[in-house]
Amino acid sequence: MADTDWPGCGKSLKGVILDMCGVLYDSGEGGGVAITGSIEAVNKLKASDLELRFCTNETQLNREAFVDKLKRLGFDISVSEVFSPAPAAVAVLKERGFRPHLLVYDGLLPEFDSVDKTNPNCVVIGDAAEKFTYQNLNEAFRVLIGLEKPVLFSLGGGRYYKEGDGLALDVGAYMKALEYACDLKAEVVGKPSPTFFQSVLNDMGLQPHEALMIGDDLVNDVGGAQNCGMKGLQVRTGKYRSSDERHSTVTADGTVDDLAQAVDMILKQRH
Amino acid sequence: MADTDWPGCGKSLKGVILDMCGVLYDSGEGGGVAITGSIEAVNKLKASDLELRFCTNETQLNREAFVDKLKRLGFDISVSEVFSPAPAAVAVLKERGFRPHLLVYDGLLPEFDSVDKTNPNCVVIGDAAEKFTYQNLNEAFRVLIGLEKPVLFSLGGGRYYKEGDGLALDVGAYMKALEYACDLKAEVVGKPSPTFFQSVLNDMGLQPHEALMIGDDLVNDVGGAQNCGMKGLQVRTGKYRSSDERHSTVTADGTVDDLAQAVDMILKQRH
Repeated sequence: MADTDWPGCGKSLKGVILDMCGVLYDSGEGGGVAITGSIEAVNKLKASDLELRFCTNETQLNREAFVDKLKRLGFDISVSEVFSPAPAAVAVLKERGFRPHLLVYDGLLPEFDSVDKTNPNCVVIGDAAEKFTYQNLNEAFRVLIGLEKPVLFSLGGGRYYKEGDGLALDVGAYMKALEYACDLKAEVVGKPSPTFFQSVLNDMGLQPHEALMIGDDLVNDVGGAQNCGMKGLQVRTGKYRSSDERHSTVTADGTVDDLAQAVDMILKQRH
Repeated sequence: MADTDWPGCGKSLKGVILDMCGVLYDSGEGGGVAITGSIEAVNKLKASDLELRFCTNETQLNREAFVDKLKRLGFDISVSEVFSPAPAAVAVLKERGFRPHLLVYDGLLPEFDSVDKTNPNCVVIGDAAEKFTYQNLNEAFRVLIGLEKPVLFSLGGGRYYKEGDGLALDVGAYMKALEYACDLKAEVVGKPSPTFFQSVLNDMGLQPHEALMIGDDLVNDVGGAQNCGMKGLQVRTGKYRSSDERHSTVTADGTVDDLAQAVDMILKQRH
């Protein structure tokens, strides 16, 4: 970190929100691997007086399966602490009477079991990965272009993420493709939507200035949190790239090597 | 057409540029089918004193194979009359020392035979259709994100086109996906690039106000030609949709049922 003094994040801090992929673990074959020191860092936060929530744009698994995966990696996390886009989307669909055509990963489908999907009047896309075929994208496009007032929901707006030893396009790229083809603006459910961050703050019972977001995605984690009045810290793990530290529009409140370093600094400042 | 008087397109007209797919023929199984009256309309233009060129964003076949396909449908067209993005892109690549990673349809690859493709320092995408797989898009993305100064060339910027009895996403949608993921702006080679339209006008030896573009794509054909100072006419065939006639930013100089009607009106105004 450039400056070891970290304005506004000392004793006034009451809660921490952690991004998951790229902060807690790196995805990859067999569920991925925990990032060094992150399991202990989570335990230290849990043992402190800070509120702790997890906020992910993960949309390849339903929350139960996703939390199970993290438990297998060694993390002490429960479903009720995890906020992800699919449950938020289901609430929006039901509230506004939308019947979705889904272009999501198979593992996420159970989240939408309770939603009427007949005669679709909107499209929902998540990080469908290998299901982002030419055929499936055309199918989603045709549903949208056939609607008098096309509505597209995107589970997150990420550009890319780290997958094994390379980077992979995230749902945001496919969202932009459909936006352009249909001349519309998608509604993003999940990070960096302010509604999404606010729902986490509400659950913690905190004001934005009392909370800190830690993530590897400068725009969606750090910038999204900052837009809500929170502080945002970037870790140099996951999808972090050195060019993030000279980004044209988003400047993190701090940049640290990894979650372990971040947690040590936070807890040190409180004593 | 709303108004049968067609301002500026009477005796002063010296040349006509025709879009191909959706104006001359509809694509589909076995090379597609000629649109009723379009073969005769091309013959009438050829028999007139008007200059005639064809301007396509077709990038699934090289020009020779593409012209052969149209000849088989019954059109009297030669390669020298057809302007398409790939030869224009090859000229740009060579001029500026770019070695492309290609994400294009197999049929287009021969156009790039003379280009050095080792150790790529840019990406070129065309309408790759079924080759727009998750894997191939990630590969193009990784080339771009790995470059210090990523450069993306897009062969056209179309949103979608008619394929058989449905609509299919065009290269522009995938261009937007990569633009967003890599935080860059692609260089469009082909319609609606002014450079591309100007190269056709140069070949005809005409000023923009002496030429008329006829196409089914309101934004890329009609709007693109208008941005160059030409008149632009939209046909109600191909990808035409009734909502085009109340588009927020582009208004065609005229809208006609098909090419046959357009040509009859043009030739009638000249006598």
